[in-house]
Amino acid sequence: MTKGVVIEHGESSKAPLVPEPVAAGVSRAVSIADVFLRFLSIVATIASAISMGTTNETLPFFTQFIQFEAKYSDLPSFTFFVAANAVVCTYLVLSIPLSIVHIIRPRARYSRLILVFFDAAMLALLTAGASAAAAIVYLAHKGNVRANWFAICQQFDSFCERISGSLIGSFAAMVLLIVLIFLSAFALARRH
Amino acid sequence: MTKGVVIEHGESSKAPLVPEPVAAGVSRAVSIADVFLRFLSIVATIASAISMGTTNETLPFFTQFIQFEAKYSDLPSFTFFVAANAVVCTYLVLSIPLSIVHIIRPRARYSRLILVFFDAAMLALLTAGASAAAAIVYLAHKGNVRANWFAICQQFDSFCERISGSLIGSFAAMVLLIVLIFLSAFALARRH
Repeated sequence: MTKGVVIEHGESSKAPLVPEPVAAGVSRAVSIADVFLRFLSIVATIASAISMGTTNETLPFFTQFIQFEAKYSDLPSFTFFVAANAVVCTYLVLSIPLSIVHIIRPRARYSRLILVFFDAAMLALLTAGASAAAAIVYLAHKGNVRANWFAICQQFDSFCERISGSLIGSFAAMVLLIVLIFLSAFALARRH
Repeated sequence: MTKGVVIEHGESSKAPLVPEPVAAGVSRAVSIADVFLRFLSIVATIASAISMGTTNETLPFFTQFIQFEAKYSDLPSFTFFVAANAVVCTYLVLSIPLSIVHIIRPRARYSRLILVFFDAAMLALLTAGASAAAAIVYLAHKGNVRANWFAICQQFDSFCERISGSLIGSFAAMVLLIVLIFLSAFALARRH
């Protein structure tokens, strides 16, 4: 390990108030936590996308005209949910190498700035997907008397359970992304 | 102005590579932009909350049982939208003093860290509100054949226009919050 030796362009190499190895150690711990949390978020978003994307329920009865079948793609919000989770998951996979570079070079700053920006954008995208899906899931469960929208969960029982469950991963990833943004900012603030 | 004199706990007072006044000037410009963007976000969120919160349409005909009236509070997603905008607006108002402190003390870091964390949390809250409302607005416009939910916008025309318009402020505030998070991280990275 090149602890305390890597000096980036534009950084002062003078002795800081906090001892060098201690400060670098904290930054490195933050970077390791960063990689770990990104892996957790990848698992959470991919689980959400797959569990929503494979949802399909066909009822065991049908009329002459309609076979009763519920799929996630019937509702545009759910399609958006799957797409948002897939995009965020892809971004997180691509961000892992940069995050690993931060373990080796704890004092990097421009790359951290890039991560903060994209993490915030991805947080917005993921939240939008999860929240739009949650609004429709709520409607499917409760319906709405005023708008004359009926609760479809009485018929499509396992479909509703599945779509409700698939939201959990997204909401967990949201929390993880907020923590990731904070960790990046913390690492930037720790630099002296 | 106390330019270059304020030294926070734990910061080195040694001469950096970038000339002190230039670096402090950039940080100060970032802080001023921060305050300005916060004011814009306050206007955007308050406009969203008010325009959604005062939406009310009564149709000019009624039956014996029902008077046809549409209010934002008929749909839980819209109530959440108003609440989310109000909370974010309140937070932004409270964050203005801290942001002004950063103009005077461009090298502050722990207060910036706090802002980054809460900005990210508020971004998630605002996005959740805007996106849940957008999902319902979409449903009100288009309906859904598979779930047997009818488009209510054919009847409640001005109601639908109003709720669609009120989303704009929230989405603008989302973009502003992402920029605010990036600016705070940038200011932290500029510190030497």
